[in-house]
Amino acid sequence: MSAASSQHSGAEPHMLSAQSLAEYLNAEFRPAPGHNKDDPVPIHSAATLQAAQSDQLSFLANPNYREHLSTTQAATVILSETMLADCPTAAIVSDDPYLSWAKALSLLHPPQPIAAGISAQTSIDPSATIDANARVEAMCHIAAGVNIGADAYIGAGSIIEQHASIGDGSRLVGKVYLGENVKLGQRVIVHPGAVIGADGFGLAMDQGRWRKIPQLGSVVIGNDCEIGANTTIDRGALDDTVLGNGVRLDNQVQIAHNVQIGDHTAIAGCVGVAGSTRIGRYCMIAGASGIGGHLTICDQVVITAMSTVLHSIDEAGTYGSGIPAKPMRNWQRTLVRLGQLDRWMRRKK
Amino acid sequence: MSAASSQHSGAEPHMLSAQSLAEYLNAEFRPAPGHNKDDPVPIHSAATLQAAQSDQLSFLANPNYREHLSTTQAATVILSETMLADCPTAAIVSDDPYLSWAKALSLLHPPQPIAAGISAQTSIDPSATIDANARVEAMCHIAAGVNIGADAYIGAGSIIEQHASIGDGSRLVGKVYLGENVKLGQRVIVHPGAVIGADGFGLAMDQGRWRKIPQLGSVVIGNDCEIGANTTIDRGALDDTVLGNGVRLDNQVQIAHNVQIGDHTAIAGCVGVAGSTRIGRYCMIAGASGIGGHLTICDQVVITAMSTVLHSIDEAGTYGSGIPAKPMRNWQRTLVRLGQLDRWMRRKK
Amino acid sequence: MSAASSQHSGAEPHMLSAQSLAEYLNAEFRPAPGHNKDDPVPIHSAATLQAAQSDQLSFLANPNYREHLSTTQAATVILSETMLADCPTAAIVSDDPYLSWAKALSLLHPPQPIAAGISAQTSIDPSATIDANARVEAMCHIAAGVNIGADAYIGAGSIIEQHASIGDGSRLVGKVYLGENVKLGQRVIVHPGAVIGADGFGLAMDQGRWRKIPQLGSVVIGNDCEIGANTTIDRGALDDTVLGNGVRLDNQVQIAHNVQIGDHTAIAGCVGVAGSTRIGRYCMIAGASGIGGHLTICDQVVITAMSTVLHSIDEAGTYGSGIPAKPMRNWQRTLVRLGQLDRWMRRKK
Repeated sequence: MSAASSQHSGAEPHMLSAQSLAEYLNAEFRPAPGHNKDDPVPIHSAATLQAAQSDQLSFLANPNYREHLSTTQAATVILSETMLADCPTAAIVSDDPYLSWAKALSLLHPPQPIAAGISAQTSIDPSATIDANARVEAMCHIAAGVNIGADAYIGAGSIIEQHASIGDGSRLVGKVYLGENVKLGQRVIVHPGAVIGADGFGLAMDQGRWRKIPQLGSVVIGNDCEIGANTTIDRGALDDTVLGNGVRLDNQVQIAHNVQIGDHTAIAGCVGVAGSTRIGRYCMIAGASGIGGHLTICDQVVITAMSTVLHSIDEAGTYGSGIPAKPMRNWQRTLVRLGQLDRWMRRKK
Repeated sequence: MSAASSQHSGAEPHMLSAQSLAEYLNAEFRPAPGHNKDDPVPIHSAATLQAAQSDQLSFLANPNYREHLSTTQAATVILSETMLADCPTAAIVSDDPYLSWAKALSLLHPPQPIAAGISAQTSIDPSATIDANARVEAMCHIAAGVNIGADAYIGAGSIIEQHASIGDGSRLVGKVYLGENVKLGQRVIVHPGAVIGADGFGLAMDQGRWRKIPQLGSVVIGNDCEIGANTTIDRGALDDTVLGNGVRLDNQVQIAHNVQIGDHTAIAGCVGVAGSTRIGRYCMIAGASGIGGHLTICDQVVITAMSTVLHSIDEAGTYGSGIPAKPMRNWQRTLVRLGQLDRWMRRKK
Repeated sequence: MSAASSQHSGAEPHMLSAQSLAEYLNAEFRPAPGHNKDDPVPIHSAATLQAAQSDQLSFLANPNYREHLSTTQAATVILSETMLADCPTAAIVSDDPYLSWAKALSLLHPPQPIAAGISAQTSIDPSATIDANARVEAMCHIAAGVNIGADAYIGAGSIIEQHASIGDGSRLVGKVYLGENVKLGQRVIVHPGAVIGADGFGLAMDQGRWRKIPQLGSVVIGNDCEIGANTTIDRGALDDTVLGNGVRLDNQVQIAHNVQIGDHTAIAGCVGVAGSTRIGRYCMIAGASGIGGHLTICDQVVITAMSTVLHSIDEAGTYGSGIPAKPMRNWQRTLVRLGQLDRWMRRKK
């Protein structure tokens, strides 16, 4: 049973000791000041530094939240060496507290197995192939020739069109739309409202009228991807739109036709990527940025929030064009000056 | 029966006189020039200044539309004292014409009561609790442990996951998704395609692969909120994502995990708010702006359209960074100069 | 049978010769170097220059892809006169290769006829009128008084509210929401997740609380329009929101209440248009731009990507305010200088 095909939040958390957790995380356990290293510190669940109670695990990864460390009531805090001196409780010292926290949470809240079966209140074409260990919830429509793998979960209200295929352990949380021939790999999570495989925006002007260009490609998504709520990924015009393995898209991302996204690239909410652009591996694109069409972005590029990418990028690094908001009176003065800049610089030359 | 749980547009409008309407609005009635104050002016319905006919109410609140006042055929116009001289028809003089208009429309078009009952073509888990005065339309899925309050309306195609709860008089217009444990207050309106309670975008890099961080919190929404079409509100990572009372979100807004939004804040279309940011009360955020993560925005902050907020704001006021479009030739010259600015200023120092 | 009411990708492609295709396109056929003009060049299907095999048609319209021409294996390439010298294969010489390509694709992949009928697993109000030649898929809800025209296709999971009407040959691909009284013309395509006719964002502040303004208008969409996935078009407050004929909206576009969009205007992904703005005919608005409210944009205006339009435009032409991303170190220096600009220019005057 993969994590991807299960639900976290409904499961009863496991109980364990901070010491055994530290061991599991390959991290050092440090008892609370004045306590014995071997006194077991039980952990029942997890919470933020502010909310944690005396049987809960917490963590400190973002220095913004450092102020809450000294007053935390947590049983144990996962943190880095540099924060240890300020920690009033037991601690688990990690080189990467955020990753250790992620692992600890998965241990405390293991995924629940899915209950295989098909809702009676759903519409399944007889030619669809659904693994006996998959689950299909109510109000779905599974069209002709669809293939659904083992341990896959098809949440309520999902529509899966002809000949789409869904790999083992994938999870369509609910209200997902997959168009014809769309292919999802294994352990892919798709959140509600996502639309994968709608037609790309392909038009040619014909004597004063737009003529639609048939969109004949599909969408192919690798293993271990996650697609956010209300995100859209269009089918290719001729070739397919392709996401590699481990690609993570947040909510309301728009991926146009024939875009290619390399392995392990993460794209935050509200980003739009125009047609035929290729994005490399291990890129990180921050929220609400726009990437133009027909560009090539190499591996390990970081784009900061609300930036506009209009040229290809062939060197790893951080790029941006977002402007931080200012008090409006100041910003309006700057705008006036910006409007005068060309004339001013020509005159002053 | 609250307004929130009913539909406006299908109702037969009420008929009334301009005089009684003025009284209801606590506003002054002024007859058309040459007419008697006591001659009843009947009103059957409402329309814009341009479209109104002789039995219709109209209004003038935005000075942009002043030019249409002198030629209006309306029976009566709601307007401010300063516009009165130009009004050829009867008038209702209000200190706040837009608010008076809103009240008048609600009087003319009272909400229709909902018809309680549950569609036979819907999927209801036997452990769900649905008030006898609620309505559930066709093609919904109501999962285990869900609680639906009195006079609530669950529009067609809505999916409500385990243990979500919906307060009295709330209205899911249709095709809404509520995730596990999501809590809506009373008289909340959720428009089609909204997704409340999808997982937040929580990832940690683990030896070259993204590891998903379980999203264990939920979403809690206060009373009298309105959530726009295709808007997404993610569940919290540990604590909940929280909207206060009277919060109004327009369409395609993205609210990330653990955001907190104070009472009576309004956010226009296409805005994105990144994780863990707290927005105060009575803020107004204009369209397509982006708010960074882990920020604190105090009460009564106004953000102008297409601005990028990257720093906390601790003083009420108006902030922005949007740049108004110009003819492209001018803008391109400005862009060239902007690129030269740093070198230029260093040289000229 | 119109193209709009059919699917392209499932159809078996037609076979034809390059010569007959050239004739159909009113274009000149040029044989491959050393070949006879009359040797038939069979074409079975279509592909990109890189992927095409010896029985496939390809095209070259975007000069970015010129490098792939000399090594293509295609049977025939549609291209312009200026590219002809570099073409190693047979060619079809067109004044507008992209349009010729669009026409050729429609010929090779003609739309499949729809199979009329109504799914048994769908909810239809008895007062709805559905043409005998229309198709309604599973998991739909067709409410009272709805009218669905001939050859219309209502894809799975679509919700159509009271008295909405859908013209002949229109295609709701799936999971579409149409609100009360919404009117679609003929041959309109609506992609999954689109929400047409949700309430506009109309609020008036009333003693510290927002009061909702009833949204009494509807949405009227002309013939031959296309509405992208997860796009939202709000109903008007009083008058209708109106799209003319041939309007094309990409994915995740937000059209607020009472917007009017002229014939044949195309709007790319993630654009937002605020309330009551009128956009002319034959405009093209590039991705992720924002258009303010209550503006008038004349015919044939082009807005470049990620621009902010805050003023009316009364002259055809290209406008913009997007800033191309730069390496972050450079951009940060520019930002610092931008912040100093007002003081600097005042001092230097």
